[in-house]
Amino acid sequence: MRVKHRKGASEHLKANTHLVVENPADFKGRWSERFGNQNPIHIEIGSGKGAFIVGMAALHPEINYVAIDLQLSVLSYALDRAIEADSPNIQMILVNGSALTEYFADGEVDQVYLNFSDPWPKTRHEKRRLTYKSFLVTDEQILKPNGEIHFKTDNRSLFEYSLVSMTNYGMKLKQVWLDLHADEAFAPQNVMTEYEQKFSSKGQVIYRLEAQFVAEPEENSTKD
Amino acid sequence: MRVKHRKGASEHLKANTHLVVENPADFKGRWSERFGNQNPIHIEIGSGKGAFIVGMAALHPEINYVAIDLQLSVLSYALDRAIEADSPNIQMILVNGSALTEYFADGEVDQVYLNFSDPWPKTRHEKRRLTYKSFLVTDEQILKPNGEIHFKTDNRSLFEYSLVSMTNYGMKLKQVWLDLHADEAFAPQNVMTEYEQKFSSKGQVIYRLEAQFVAEPEENSTKD
Repeated sequence: MRVKHRKGASEHLKANTHLVVENPADFKGRWSERFGNQNPIHIEIGSGKGAFIVGMAALHPEINYVAIDLQLSVLSYALDRAIEADSPNIQMILVNGSALTEYFADGEVDQVYLNFSDPWPKTRHEKRRLTYKSFLVTDEQILKPNGEIHFKTDNRSLFEYSLVSMTNYGMKLKQVWLDLHADEAFAPQNVMTEYEQKFSSKGQVIYRLEAQFVAEPEENSTKD
Repeated sequence: MRVKHRKGASEHLKANTHLVVENPADFKGRWSERFGNQNPIHIEIGSGKGAFIVGMAALHPEINYVAIDLQLSVLSYALDRAIEADSPNIQMILVNGSALTEYFADGEVDQVYLNFSDPWPKTRHEKRRLTYKSFLVTDEQILKPNGEIHFKTDNRSLFEYSLVSMTNYGMKLKQVWLDLHADEAFAPQNVMTEYEQKFSSKGQVIYRLEAQFVAEPEENSTKD
């Protein structure tokens, strides 16, 4: 998501350190302390203006959410929403999604959300797509065993690419939607992003998948 | 594919035993003899009226094709096409796709095609879908190691189901198309089925995937 630079965005974040974590590496392995409870931790990588994660936090008070974006102005708009929603179960960090092992301990995260991630359509930019294998390595590391990625997009090429990339990494698909909004049963739990509202109203198909990492069976090492 | 009973279909097949194999179990492990060469063997399970497999046989003389359908009248129409095309690299069998291990030896088949398979939309009919795990077990058995299934359909629910079923079986997706006819690069090699021509001309999206079985690494059994 590209937005114009927002004046005062940096000061806005600094004035709200109860929501925006200034030094997220300090909480690696200690996010439960930050939230003050042992609830599961779900993160959204590329949370944009925050409609999804702030909406999810309101809908699921039993889950802790961490919104992640690398763009200052974008995160500052998400912060507006979080302030307005005033949910105790959301925290925000301004970091790059490729460096998440600096901020989360192995197995600390229960679920990863990707929503309308940048498609990076050119082949030479494949490594920047958030479902490229190097990102899956990171996600698997910070997720619990058999952790899941839930991914929505309107971009057909990115979705096709992700199906291939994830299954070649060894992930299993738990469920796939090739026209999410046609599934009336899913609608009540579907928190829409800004993009989703916009594109869906134009009749664009929305794709969604839930993919699961497959934990290697523990070796019974009985060496002596 | 359901069609009206065709008068004389049985006699039609019996009059063309150079194309329709009467006792396919006799050729289990010996299909190369039947074709008279060692070319790879591709099969289509549910070949319908044969537009796809007869078209493929004409396009790929270096591959041997076996058309499989369990409906007499349907296969008799495919036979018409095969007679007209007069390709030496096609054979047809009237059998049930669930019993393929009776007709093909382990690893005898190089590739499986599924095209516009019956979606069996009711949950209680899940086991009849050709991408249900019991069919995948059979396909994996008769396919060479790391063999592939290439699958096309216009049925969104069946395609969603198949992505989940195949990856949970442990297959990897090599490539996925969520709007096959939008891919101009694929068009020259895309032999259309009757259904595909009909539904595509109505603007219906055609889905396609290439999925690969993952051979277990050989165990180095060094028991003494």
